Amino acid sequence: MKIGVIGGGQLGRMLALAGTPLGMNFAFLDPAPDACAAALGEHLRADYSDPDHLRQLADEVDLVTFEFESVPAETVAFLSQFVPVYPSAEALRIARDRWFEKSMFKDLGIPTPAFADIQSQADLDAAVASIGLPAVLKTRTLGYDGKGQKVLRTDADVVGTFAELGSVACLLEGFVPFTGEVSLIAVRARDGETRFYPLVHNTHDSGILKLSVASTDHPLQALAEDYSSRVLKQLDYVGVMAFEFFEVDGGLKANEIAPRVHNSGHWTTEGAECSQFENHLRAVAGLPLGSTAKVGESAMLNFIGVVPPVEKVIAIDDCHLHHYGKAFKAGRKVGHANLRCKDRATLQAQILKVEALIAEQ
Amino acid sequence: MKIGVIGGGQLGRMLALAGTPLGMNFAFLDPAPDACAAALGEHLRADYSDPDHLRQLADEVDLVTFEFESVPAETVAFLSQFVPVYPSAEALRIARDRWFEKSMFKDLGIPTPAFADIQSQADLDAAVASIGLPAVLKTRTLGYDGKGQKVLRTDADVVGTFAELGSVACLLEGFVPFTGEVSLIAVRARDGETRFYPLVHNTHDSGILKLSVASTDHPLQALAEDYSSRVLKQLDYVGVMAFEFFEVDGGLKANEIAPRVHNSGHWTTEGAECSQFENHLRAVAGLPLGSTAKVGESAMLNFIGVVPPVEKVIAIDDCHLHHYGKAFKAGRKVGHANLRCKDRATLQAQILKVEALIAEQ
Repeated sequence: MKIGVIGGGQLGRMLALAGTPLGMNFAFLDPAPDACAAALGEHLRADYSDPDHLRQLADEVDLVTFEFESVPAETVAFLSQFVPVYPSAEALRIARDRWFEKSMFKDLGIPTPAFADIQSQADLDAAVASIGLPAVLKTRTLGYDGKGQKVLRTDADVVGTFAELGSVACLLEGFVPFTGEVSLIAVRARDGETRFYPLVHNTHDSGILKLSVASTDHPLQALAEDYSSRVLKQLDYVGVMAFEFFEVDGGLKANEIAPRVHNSGHWTTEGAECSQFENHLRAVAGLPLGSTAKVGESAMLNFIGVVPPVEKVIAIDDCHLHHYGKAFKAGRKVGHANLRCKDRATLQAQILKVEALIAEQ
Repeated sequence: MKIGVIGGGQLGRMLALAGTPLGMNFAFLDPAPDACAAALGEHLRADYSDPDHLRQLADEVDLVTFEFESVPAETVAFLSQFVPVYPSAEALRIARDRWFEKSMFKDLGIPTPAFADIQSQADLDAAVASIGLPAVLKTRTLGYDGKGQKVLRTDADVVGTFAELGSVACLLEGFVPFTGEVSLIAVRARDGETRFYPLVHNTHDSGILKLSVASTDHPLQALAEDYSSRVLKQLDYVGVMAFEFFEVDGGLKANEIAPRVHNSGHWTTEGAECSQFENHLRAVAGLPLGSTAKVGESAMLNFIGVVPPVEKVIAIDDCHLHHYGKAFKAGRKVGHANLRCKDRATLQAQILKVEALIAEQ
């Protein structure tokens, strides 16, 4: 089976590493000459809306999937004429736009921070009056890793901010005094069967995920699964979807969804019976889902800007390096370390060792 | 770091799957147009003794390793002028020739079946008189998966057999009434550090490995490590080496070595902290070795000739498919299943399920 992937970054690369042992081949559509997934499959180097290359991709592969959600809707619509595409155009339409996403949460009875659609500075002023400060202004589309957003703390922060974010459609979100951030990685098969990995505790730094720790018997697991199930069912979703939640007052408020394999699920490569990457491929290919049970106690630490010396990373016990083969650049995710340990105490000790190594760089 | 691999079959493919997350790139030299490792790296399609392509490979990569031992000695000697080659020419010279191999065992005090060098039918007749029947006649070089050998049970079997095997240099081996076959996968770093995986019980069918089961606290582990250490030290070996032993009268007799990752170590992909593939790459690249400790209870079952339907293989709990992406052909290794289970009882039950699936094909 040949899988077409829109995007050829590290997520595509890890999909190919998981899918090759299933006998799958891969083709990546990515305009970047140095797309790091290209080492593991065919590289169609073209723009995401180039009809000739989209047609070529559709002709060559058995199905198409995505490694990022900011794919033009027309791209998905075009491809869908010729080849099965998972997740669906509708799932991408919702997930790529914070207004649609939050509105869906609200419609499905899933708690989410107060929010308002912002099409002008006047909209922003009115929404701030209604929602209050502090609040976060985010572009409705194309934001990632903390980009395309601004925290508003005082009235002065509000002045001219709509123009500052480019005078594009935005969403204002009420600030949530959360006690923690967790994410749930779910996978749903074509026949509707759904499985969930254990909730993950996430720590961010300047908007970029720094550390994910897989939980054991988290008291909010069932609630997170309930909320997520509503979304998956609503979208008749196929593939892996990540749900980010704020922990607030012992409950959860939905922050956002990602219709793809997700950074906070990278620990599953060694830390779960079947990884998020393999399970995504199983789902989109119509194969039976794999077990989402944990193997040991796991955490993931991102390498941002630079991968520490390989010999130092792999000298740490229980540490599995995932190097993306990308050029090092400040603020760029260039690799991660997965720790899989026999117990929590060991895991905590090994996290400190990887953090110390990161701090040395 | 770019690694050159002589051979582009499934072992090269699995080396690349293990090395890519370490940030390594791969180039495979293999004359076969459909070399299955080519999906994961550059494919230099040329004969193993083609000096132009060997020179190109040497220029492109940081070091060269092998996925099979029947590489012409001149190839290794040529490459070694330009680029580090691991394992060494001397290790390959010994391992590819059963006479050198068995003589080394003898010199190092490692028990091995009675053996004799056979250069003619007269040599064979004399050796049969001395060693007795049953015995096995094997070509000194190029044998694998039961090819290039013949079991001699009666005097009639001996007549004309030297010519039958091609009138090439052979080795006669006394038949050993063994109670089991085990293998030890070892890895030795450039600095001499050596680690061993748990002994593996192997079951063959028509000379081809069918089933490998990783042991726990095997009573012969220490003895196997002792024998293997002698060989590794003697050859100043770098990389993974597999040792096959017969279990005889509560002891071990060395059968053969393979200077490479080995089929009986495939279970380590999921079943050990660090797989044989990653550890081979760590060793040849001068990186610290990884843990050889087991994760759960594991077994490996080969798919010979055909991979059962993917959806049936991966529907078996605890089962991890490794599909080589090769054309199906009778007697050809085209994939394997790794089982990693929580205990031995579960492992035994799941082995029966995979065996039933194989029997259906």
